[in-house]
Amino acid sequence: VVRVAVDAMGGDHAPDEIVAGAVRASRDLGIHVLLVGRSDEVHRALQTAGAQPGAGLEVIDAPSVIAMDERDPARAVRSNPDSSVAVAARLVRDGLAEAMVSAGATGAAMAAGVLGMGRVRGVPRPAITVVLPFGDSPTVLVDAGANVDVRPEHLASFGVLGSVFAQVTLGIEDPRVGLLSVGEEDDKGSELSKAAFPLLGATGVRFVGNVEGRDIASDRVDVVVTDGFTGNVVLKLLEGFAKFLMVELLKIFDATDETRKAGEVVLPGLLDLRARLSPETYGGAHLLGVRGVCIICHGSSDAQATCAAIEIAARTVSAGLVTRVAERLGGRARDGGSAGPSGENTADTAEGMA
Amino acid sequence: VVRVAVDAMGGDHAPDEIVAGAVRASRDLGIHVLLVGRSDEVHRALQTAGAQPGAGLEVIDAPSVIAMDERDPARAVRSNPDSSVAVAARLVRDGLAEAMVSAGATGAAMAAGVLGMGRVRGVPRPAITVVLPFGDSPTVLVDAGANVDVRPEHLASFGVLGSVFAQVTLGIEDPRVGLLSVGEEDDKGSELSKAAFPLLGATGVRFVGNVEGRDIASDRVDVVVTDGFTGNVVLKLLEGFAKFLMVELLKIFDATDETRKAGEVVLPGLLDLRARLSPETYGGAHLLGVRGVCIICHGSSDAQATCAAIEIAARTVSAGLVTRVAERLGGRARDGGSAGPSGENTADTAEGMA
Repeated sequence: VVRVAVDAMGGDHAPDEIVAGAVRASRDLGIHVLLVGRSDEVHRALQTAGAQPGAGLEVIDAPSVIAMDERDPARAVRSNPDSSVAVAARLVRDGLAEAMVSAGATGAAMAAGVLGMGRVRGVPRPAITVVLPFGDSPTVLVDAGANVDVRPEHLASFGVLGSVFAQVTLGIEDPRVGLLSVGEEDDKGSELSKAAFPLLGATGVRFVGNVEGRDIASDRVDVVVTDGFTGNVVLKLLEGFAKFLMVELLKIFDATDETRKAGEVVLPGLLDLRARLSPETYGGAHLLGVRGVCIICHGSSDAQATCAAIEIAARTVSAGLVTRVAERLGGRARDGGSAGPSGENTADTAEGMA
Repeated sequence: VVRVAVDAMGGDHAPDEIVAGAVRASRDLGIHVLLVGRSDEVHRALQTAGAQPGAGLEVIDAPSVIAMDERDPARAVRSNPDSSVAVAARLVRDGLAEAMVSAGATGAAMAAGVLGMGRVRGVPRPAITVVLPFGDSPTVLVDAGANVDVRPEHLASFGVLGSVFAQVTLGIEDPRVGLLSVGEEDDKGSELSKAAFPLLGATGVRFVGNVEGRDIASDRVDVVVTDGFTGNVVLKLLEGFAKFLMVELLKIFDATDETRKAGEVVLPGLLDLRARLSPETYGGAHLLGVRGVCIICHGSSDAQATCAAIEIAARTVSAGLVTRVAERLGGRARDGGSAGPSGENTADTAEGMA
């Protein structure tokens, strides 16, 4: 049985919705869930959800909470080792869980993951991966926001992380990896992307060269590699543009009685499309390169989204993501040791987080 | 009467569609058009369009053409001063036209604009501006691809260029200028964006701070400032995502007889939305910071798009864009002199082009 540590206090609807989702995952999916948070609040939420702690559902006390609007979440995590998100990460480090899930502030969850679990050997910078459900096959975007300033070798390692991730979680045998740039030709790009190009080619992944912004929403590649600044802009632009388009569609349908009737007919299909494209669906991001499965959910996650994230976490553990990353990058997945081989570098990574 | 030099040979449908569009602009809008290209081909296209050269429609011979798929368009322009796009730019430099329009390779048009017209004094790097028609008021994106590697002070000057552009072409009195970043807080961002933040604040534009990807499709700001790498990714992502969504919508409508009927009812509205969001509409980009109006159209431009671009060029000239840019940046719009105060820097700019 996979054990998942859930940050019960993180998210706009914490703890009630988070706990309700955890109860569902434990009861319906047989996943062992460790609910981490302020004991009294978690127990109250459990009562509301009509559940109580038991064999597959433990409560782990963590007295402090990192606020959703914390200005410097990485520092907040460092100075609050007893916060729910930090405790959840340490449960994984200490071998009491294989995965953590948090819907709290992204920066806090990243910092907790990196500082608490430590990096896999050979991973210079853990990165955030998001699966974008576009086209006939989904596209993996990496880095979606963890490292806003990177060096060429970091981009190369993101390519390896993304490739392993696509293999393990999407079942793509030899994923096509593209480098996000401003033109398809090999020599197009920024100084950064041009320097990363040959390094990516030397990683051993199936590097297909430069791809452009439009390829993110196509089936041309399975993995799109970019820095966390561009990746974050891409992700938020998609979110904002999808929202804008839905408003425009509603305007079209709301024009006349006739179009309103037509709208009713296609409404189920539209709602389904909206659900597929909503950040609550693809917003379940993986922090790759840390010694454990670490899933960061959208802050707006409800019970259903939380349950889905816990399920994905368990599946990712079973698929052996962390071991596969460690094998590909030449290190070991877990060595029972401290957070990372180099405290300084680990701290750097947390600093670089958005 | 405004005189617009049109690169008759640039674009996927050149010269026929370009010439047809120019004929329309000259005949219907009273704009003086100088058609620049291979004489024989332009004359043949004029015949096809049922027109002939006259008072408002001149043919200027330019024996060579920069190919659409030219690998290094900036160099090609430098080594082909008699190419249609280079000659069009020189007509503006020499005071024989106030604007140029090209649907040729973007890099070629940029290089021709910068090398041929020269930079306005005080503009370190000309930038590409695109008007994105999202929300209730459009959003100006700058730089949309001219400079893939920039320094903080370049971003600050893009803010001024974008602000002046929004004032002059969109009639926004005091445009809200935002810096594209990974979070709204002042201290969020990459090293580049964080360094640009105080510089933008000191430009005198109405700087509203950091904005995120989602704000590009909202009404939060009038001008979004970013580097040409990110801007290019944004533009192409929007293009690809809009295309993807249209395919998904068609699938929804094509599901059953009932949804197909519903689709017919809302089809006009959908086609209208698609037209508003198509790159042919908002793809008419302005190269800002050069000594003349320079409009770069989408390569797929047809007669209608060409005519629209010529009209926009004429309107932008009448609105005094170049003078206003020169006033704001402390230089002069035109001094009848050579291409630029510093040949070296001008060449740098062309080098930096994607």
